[in-house]
Amino acid sequence: MAAVKTHGSPLSTATQRVLACLYEKGVEFQFVPVNMGAGEHKSEKYLSINPFGQVPAFEEGDFKLFESRAITQYIANEYSDKGAQLLLPGSNKSMAVLQLWKEVEAHQFDPASSKLAWELFYKPFFGLATDTAVVEENEAKLTKVLDVYETRLAQSKYLACDYFTLADLHHLPNIQCLLGTPSKKLLDSRPHVSAWVADITARPAWSKVLAMQKQ
Amino acid sequence: MAAVKTHGSPLSTATQRVLACLYEKGVEFQFVPVNMGAGEHKSEKYLSINPFGQVPAFEEGDFKLFESRAITQYIANEYSDKGAQLLLPGSNKSMAVLQLWKEVEAHQFDPASSKLAWELFYKPFFGLATDTAVVEENEAKLTKVLDVYETRLAQSKYLACDYFTLADLHHLPNIQCLLGTPSKKLLDSRPHVSAWVADITARPAWSKVLAMQKQ
Repeated sequence: MAAVKTHGSPLSTATQRVLACLYEKGVEFQFVPVNMGAGEHKSEKYLSINPFGQVPAFEEGDFKLFESRAITQYIANEYSDKGAQLLLPGSNKSMAVLQLWKEVEAHQFDPASSKLAWELFYKPFFGLATDTAVVEENEAKLTKVLDVYETRLAQSKYLACDYFTLADLHHLPNIQCLLGTPSKKLLDSRPHVSAWVADITARPAWSKVLAMQKQ
Repeated sequence: MAAVKTHGSPLSTATQRVLACLYEKGVEFQFVPVNMGAGEHKSEKYLSINPFGQVPAFEEGDFKLFESRAITQYIANEYSDKGAQLLLPGSNKSMAVLQLWKEVEAHQFDPASSKLAWELFYKPFFGLATDTAVVEENEAKLTKVLDVYETRLAQSKYLACDYFTLADLHHLPNIQCLLGTPSKKLLDSRPHVSAWVADITARPAWSKVLAMQKQ
């Protein structure tokens, strides 16, 4: 197997998504830090791996990939015999249910939670002022999403099925940000969501990502 | 095979994505119009199929699915022996390349093009005023995305490979909207993008979706 390299920043939620997947699968990899403050992600060299100039990017020998959720899907498929399962193999219907909850994360959870993470977690970190109107709008959106999650997680231990899959994993970076903000109340006030958050953030693979962030 | 039902509105881009896929695969289906003006998508009955109260929703006997891109993936897998291929079966690497371009559509193309479609296509249709600042911001974003597409489409006839796949199909509804707006210039001014747009919008399956819209 060719050597795996992941380019990114431990502060980037998209990079964290890929790191969590690599640790879950127990895949050895080299982490290549991208100095975004110095504009390294816009360098010609980096753009040859990710033409959008965003982190992360992934290499396995000559094979290059970008977009965090495409990378996690590839890792889960390619290293299917290692570590946690993360997929829902079997019938087209069971795979479709996993795909459905991955799409829900990408199109329902991510837009609202990313905006809240930016306003309440990253902006204060960079010394910028929070826009309370944006917070209010996106807390309202996230409330509706989490109401659907509460119903789903009352029926199923994890989003796609009774075990942890990519559909849950993809939520980890934004959930971790929200836990450090006043929007945490939206997670805490829903018993099934709250138990799910406690469960998925306690995974050893996720602790390894957080440890990288602290370094 | 159980009867296929698709709930939605021919005016909704997400519904159009699913209809295009059904016509490409030659899958017989019943179209169930959802009267969004009358709030039918927020009715208890509809929420039992799609708890987010959005169109489309999909049923195949007892099996229910929502999120347009999860539905197209299911249809392409389940009816793999019918109609256009739409997938890139084979190695994990080739499937990852398809996934990559599907993610690019969802996270790079869709956010900017949806906002332009809303401001320049749907708002005038509903008699609302266009916000020119939003148009300017999203034309700038779409320009960067289409520059990457121009390079990609100079190397490859379609986004994922040399034949039409879901990665191309998912773009059709927003591209069709843009063609009816001043943002069309962003597509026209790039020769490979322009040829790709002409090719994919000329597919017979897409003509059937447009015919439904006119009815």
